[in-house]
Amino acid sequence: MKIFTEEEVMSYTMADAIRDTRAILERQNADKIVNRKQVLMAAGHNNMIMNFPALDIEKGLSATKIMSIRDGVSKAYSILTDIESGEVVANVAASYLTELRTGAMSGIATNLLARRDAKVLGVIGTGRMAVQQVFGVLSVRDIEKIVLFNRHLEKAEVFKDKITALGANCEIEIVDDVNVLTEQSDIINTATPAREAVFDDAYVKDGAHINGIGAFMPSTKELNVDTIGRAKYSIADYKKGVETSAGGFIEAVKQEKFEFDRLIQLNEALETQFDRDDADITVFKSVGASLYDMAVAIGAYEKLK
Amino acid sequence: MKIFTEEEVMSYTMADAIRDTRAILERQNADKIVNRKQVLMAAGHNNMIMNFPALDIEKGLSATKIMSIRDGVSKAYSILTDIESGEVVANVAASYLTELRTGAMSGIATNLLARRDAKVLGVIGTGRMAVQQVFGVLSVRDIEKIVLFNRHLEKAEVFKDKITALGANCEIEIVDDVNVLTEQSDIINTATPAREAVFDDAYVKDGAHINGIGAFMPSTKELNVDTIGRAKYSIADYKKGVETSAGGFIEAVKQEKFEFDRLIQLNEALETQFDRDDADITVFKSVGASLYDMAVAIGAYEKLK
Repeated sequence: MKIFTEEEVMSYTMADAIRDTRAILERQNADKIVNRKQVLMAAGHNNMIMNFPALDIEKGLSATKIMSIRDGVSKAYSILTDIESGEVVANVAASYLTELRTGAMSGIATNLLARRDAKVLGVIGTGRMAVQQVFGVLSVRDIEKIVLFNRHLEKAEVFKDKITALGANCEIEIVDDVNVLTEQSDIINTATPAREAVFDDAYVKDGAHINGIGAFMPSTKELNVDTIGRAKYSIADYKKGVETSAGGFIEAVKQEKFEFDRLIQLNEALETQFDRDDADITVFKSVGASLYDMAVAIGAYEKLK
Repeated sequence: MKIFTEEEVMSYTMADAIRDTRAILERQNADKIVNRKQVLMAAGHNNMIMNFPALDIEKGLSATKIMSIRDGVSKAYSILTDIESGEVVANVAASYLTELRTGAMSGIATNLLARRDAKVLGVIGTGRMAVQQVFGVLSVRDIEKIVLFNRHLEKAEVFKDKITALGANCEIEIVDDVNVLTEQSDIINTATPAREAVFDDAYVKDGAHINGIGAFMPSTKELNVDTIGRAKYSIADYKKGVETSAGGFIEAVKQEKFEFDRLIQLNEALETQFDRDDADITVFKSVGASLYDMAVAIGAYEKLK
């Protein structure tokens, strides 16, 4: 059994993650993937443990991500088991990988839906999960300018330094009015636990694509319901998860601005011909799912072993 | 992170397992245990991976047993995670522990239900899981004679040698007619994948107690429906599991010989006053559940670390 630390898995890159995530979606389309709903176990007031079980028939491995959340701080490990031998072959640190896989999904969805000539990326919410989401977009579009918004300006400053250190070498602007961000962004990334929309639909630029990764509970509603309603295409990383957990979408359905059968799951999206006009709005919504954790855990294991 | 092999966990005994299983049932009654349904993932024709997730709030640990079954051969490991730190603290080999915990459950249930003066133990089906089930009963009753039945006599011989080597020092008889076993047994253990009853209700001795651990699918029905129907008390290790997976019980309900609300779950049984007459029949049915795997995985970890 091999053990890979957070430090070791850092050599697994966004390019690796996008390639492996795309490949697992193709295997999902070929019925080679078993993806199971997360198992949530509450451990007292502010703690919980979640299990994310999945299985890759082609790779001959199962992966169960075990994630702990304590007072809002999460840590995760993916346990890989060889299906043939029944042996546990690896324990792969999965905190960085969880951020990376979310960024990789946003990259894949952005590549499918965003305008080819998208130049400005707006980032609303600059916490830990937002970092790799930036690099997911940078991997698929020639971004010239990143605009950052956080209600706490100093957090946006820290974020700017972090993404610069990690290699984001375009112009980076910090704004204190979210509308200034919205009106100029070709792509908007949101990663907040907000209980109401973090941008105003009236300011959304024609042709914008939005990646929402913050909301993962019915009470969290960062995406604007009007924007959800008028989007030409909406991709979900995991349809069942979005239907039960994505507050903005649930609210949009409640207000009869959206129907869940319009959602396209990311694996289906790989096989979909999108017919978007330059002015159409598009949305990608991620709540997370076991198979994405498996994609990067197996990918990192294969790269490092 | 500590790794404990099958060989190392052998020093964890039946006495340890009965003590720790009883303790976890008491914590379950105090709402300190989260027990989640198994997650089943099919990997092609004859392979599957199952996850058994549970959490022990008092011990501050979660345990996920990852079990593989390939062409009928199973292997298992329990992954322990510290709830406070989020770290994976141990990978505990769990094949022997799975046999042991099943035996421990049978021991606890037998102690609650079987006659105090039970002397003869009948064993129907002498596969791997049956071994520790014998020692579970030997731990709680003064058994003078063990009677073995297997359709293949040579398998019963091998089993006799095995339990003798492991310390069963009473008389051991092998019979080629199951009725000869049934009519003299105060306690009957069954551990078969049989699709019909493995004993005839007419031969069941007055006052007998039966432990059924073989059937874990609706199609497996080793327990006699008439015996299930007339048992004064029936204990289940996991009620939901028995209702959906124990073929004999499902069949007995279908034939209107039993109702599921008569089932007493093992943790409830610890707090139940049983009022059995000497001639009453009683039954324990086990299909397995995550919390039992957790009890012995944490127990072995605490003993060995």
